[in-house]
Amino acid sequence: MSTEGTIAATIHEEQSGDGARRRRPGGRGGDRSRKTNGSSYTNLTNTRARTELLSADQLEAIHNASLTVLEEIGMDIMLPEARERMKAAGAHVTPGSERVRFDRGLIMDMIATVPKEFTLHARNPLRNVRMGGNSLAFGQVASAPFVSDLEDGRRTGNQRDYRNLIKLAQSYDIIHLTGGYPVEPVDIHASIRHLDCLSDLVKLTDKPFHAYSLGKQRNEDALEIARIGRGISREQMDSEPSLFTIINSSSPLRLDGPMLQGIIEMSSRNQVVVLTPFTLAGAMAPVTIAGALVQQNAEALCGIAFTQMVRRGAPAIYGGFTSNVDMKTGAPAFGTPEYMQAVIAGGQLARRYGFPYRTSSTNAANTVDAQAAYESVFSLWGVIEGGGNFVMHSAGWTEGGLTASYEKFILDVDLLQMVAEFLKPIDVSEDALGLDAIREVGPGGHFFGTAHTLARYETAFYSPIISDWRNNETWVEAGSPTAYQKASKVARSTLANYEQPPLDPAIEEELDAFVARRKEEGGVATDF
Amino acid sequence: MSTEGTIAATIHEEQSGDGARRRRPGGRGGDRSRKTNGSSYTNLTNTRARTELLSADQLEAIHNASLTVLEEIGMDIMLPEARERMKAAGAHVTPGSERVRFDRGLIMDMIATVPKEFTLHARNPLRNVRMGGNSLAFGQVASAPFVSDLEDGRRTGNQRDYRNLIKLAQSYDIIHLTGGYPVEPVDIHASIRHLDCLSDLVKLTDKPFHAYSLGKQRNEDALEIARIGRGISREQMDSEPSLFTIINSSSPLRLDGPMLQGIIEMSSRNQVVVLTPFTLAGAMAPVTIAGALVQQNAEALCGIAFTQMVRRGAPAIYGGFTSNVDMKTGAPAFGTPEYMQAVIAGGQLARRYGFPYRTSSTNAANTVDAQAAYESVFSLWGVIEGGGNFVMHSAGWTEGGLTASYEKFILDVDLLQMVAEFLKPIDVSEDALGLDAIREVGPGGHFFGTAHTLARYETAFYSPIISDWRNNETWVEAGSPTAYQKASKVARSTLANYEQPPLDPAIEEELDAFVARRKEEGGVATDF
Repeated sequence: MSTEGTIAATIHEEQSGDGARRRRPGGRGGDRSRKTNGSSYTNLTNTRARTELLSADQLEAIHNASLTVLEEIGMDIMLPEARERMKAAGAHVTPGSERVRFDRGLIMDMIATVPKEFTLHARNPLRNVRMGGNSLAFGQVASAPFVSDLEDGRRTGNQRDYRNLIKLAQSYDIIHLTGGYPVEPVDIHASIRHLDCLSDLVKLTDKPFHAYSLGKQRNEDALEIARIGRGISREQMDSEPSLFTIINSSSPLRLDGPMLQGIIEMSSRNQVVVLTPFTLAGAMAPVTIAGALVQQNAEALCGIAFTQMVRRGAPAIYGGFTSNVDMKTGAPAFGTPEYMQAVIAGGQLARRYGFPYRTSSTNAANTVDAQAAYESVFSLWGVIEGGGNFVMHSAGWTEGGLTASYEKFILDVDLLQMVAEFLKPIDVSEDALGLDAIREVGPGGHFFGTAHTLARYETAFYSPIISDWRNNETWVEAGSPTAYQKASKVARSTLANYEQPPLDPAIEEELDAFVARRKEEGGVATDF
Repeated sequence: MSTEGTIAATIHEEQSGDGARRRRPGGRGGDRSRKTNGSSYTNLTNTRARTELLSADQLEAIHNASLTVLEEIGMDIMLPEARERMKAAGAHVTPGSERVRFDRGLIMDMIATVPKEFTLHARNPLRNVRMGGNSLAFGQVASAPFVSDLEDGRRTGNQRDYRNLIKLAQSYDIIHLTGGYPVEPVDIHASIRHLDCLSDLVKLTDKPFHAYSLGKQRNEDALEIARIGRGISREQMDSEPSLFTIINSSSPLRLDGPMLQGIIEMSSRNQVVVLTPFTLAGAMAPVTIAGALVQQNAEALCGIAFTQMVRRGAPAIYGGFTSNVDMKTGAPAFGTPEYMQAVIAGGQLARRYGFPYRTSSTNAANTVDAQAAYESVFSLWGVIEGGGNFVMHSAGWTEGGLTASYEKFILDVDLLQMVAEFLKPIDVSEDALGLDAIREVGPGGHFFGTAHTLARYETAFYSPIISDWRNNETWVEAGSPTAYQKASKVARSTLANYEQPPLDPAIEEELDAFVARRKEEGGVATDF
């Protein structure tokens, strides 16, 4: 064992002695989560320089190729009303077909009016989320069909888990938005599911939320529930974005009816459209990252241009979701080197147009193991270097989005908080330089007991939720818990300590009355 | 389930159908590790812009404070010969004490002759490692007292595991150096341990290696074994750095006898000194990151200046190992937000002086779980943003350096390869933009079978060693393997397929004769 090993061993030995431990400030009984429920993680910014993976010429090459795609190939626009609006705006609609082509001048003219920054309003103004610029906001896992926890395993989404997961999202300030249903509660009939779910989002959380674009009526119901939740007029709502929708293109090069209808409903009310092509390189997009980005950019520009055809100045966000597939099996892959590159290059594209940028924290792991962690941190690395403003799926996503995991949620909260801490500036004040402490301790001394240390020990470093830094002997005595097991315990205690945010009784009454009326009307017609 | 979920589900379903899978190129039986044993990961560079966490003023504040430390407080120099050499060079030695103080002009004058870049020579010239500039080299775990694998658990270091671990290091091109013994083989008597271990490093690997500075005789033996391994003269050896040593200061502000002796032996022979203070903020260094960096910089500058007092122009590397402790228990922490900040700021300091920069990939996990992975990737994130040239401990480190893990080694190789892939430039050639493929497929089509895809599917994306991207059903059928279990299998198959690198029989004979002679002489005197 050499010096580096010896020093580590010494430190380990020091902390394993009971006497030594008792002398340490704080102790095991301390509140290890003190930072997790405070307000220190709201209004995050990422002020680091963004990485420029693409040269200016390369960026223009992708930009130009995507405009060529829209001009020469065009997109299939699968809603007559949308084609009519596009035609009126100057696009070329092929008669008797869904194909629409767009001159590059039209696209560039339309997207010029997208706001560079805006605020997404929550019913609690402290939870308002800034979008664009240097802002950084994290959204919870969304739209998983399955849910899992360590105790009860993997199961189909249901209302109980749905509610638990949004309670978890409410419990941590680092989660700035809920984005869609964290898990799909299929035990609620599809005709009224959105009414129950949106009502829960208003009551159980006070953060901004999302509306699925699954038909005009659901968008309208969501707009009304968001308005009631905030206790504002329709006019105020129309001037203050208070709801967002994710619009996925049906890659390659299609926008389907519900998505186009969603843009019409949301943009016409000045609400937020997040246009996210899901361009898996090698499957729904070219096998090269550059080619997938060309297609992503074409689809995003088309959809965002359409928001401005609906209403000039309506808020829109550029979404990047380019990843690759395992070419041996066709399985989607996430948090890969190619994903990181695509996220960073996507940020350059978004900034080229001045759009706020939506990204995701992703992984394809089947359990909360090392893979889940490294794919997630690689994703976040790409997100931060890419200047992502809004990070969807950033807590709880596993299996490439198929399963929402309670334990992964807690693990991710820890990862996001670490990223937020990493982004804080280093204090280089005279006092922080610590010359007096170094003088006091001198060669061969120890800093544990100095005044400089004692004045700072409670807040000096981030206190993680999950990380287990005990020495091996103590850890084995404790049953050799993994991060997965630790996260399971934390998830349960967080739920046990969940506090419902206060809601004006008049608002609650109006909300309940609206939901009851809409349920009486049968909700929304469904096929089944 | 909404669009993003639906799309993911669709893809998962597609790949779970047997028919669909059979149509995919490659198939499960393919060589998933094809990239891991090629030569694509030698001579890595990190050409990304380095992150500047500290402003120019802040950097100067740390620089100046560290020179003030050396000038006013000084260091304890625990070897008379070193104090004499320092005095001769112009330092202020306090009579009857170990304390030495250094004028800032002396330090700056001395460090001016450290080479900005140099080559560390291996016995196989293809394995030579460039240090400094944009070069990026990864070293294996070093100096762990314990070793573990999933099958046999945690045990004290021994020769069998030592040999296995250096065989693993030889098996992957992404590991550019071995650095110290990956695990300490305590079943070999300390008097001759270095002879057996260094002989193994020459025979079982053909990569550059490390000599412990644990007394003059051991350094001399290591220099001779490195010379014999390369089959060169003493003169050639002295003009071509072929061996490196890690010099840890005994923080705060001390350099002990063996370390100072090591600098004398290695620098006088023009070999590589990696000067690495182990400044744990809150323990052996001030509790602030800025303060810990002041102390790190003071200790590193002192040691590096001493290399130049021994021999002007001798190669030296600036090592940063500042991390924090858990203030509640005193346990060392790694891969934390504070660690990332320290690594990046440390890079700014190294570049300020023009030194090659040594960092580490670290974690404090007790097992190969999510924590082990996220702390490691956070470390690597800091290393890459910080412009680390030489990354020690980057495969196999667990428990803050106390245990070398076979499975963590394999996992880390995968992480390092992913980092190397991430650092490759994106191909934005006309062909990569893929306009023809997009034209061919058109709206609503699929890229799996296009010529553009078929021409690239084998090399389009990194094929990971560990990541399991199978759908849940298939994964459960396979026994729900974790990344840890997968890594265990790969470690065993890698060892089974290990190939000893060729060695000139004359060199082997000379090496064996030298080791035999030195053993006959009793090796090195020990205390026990």
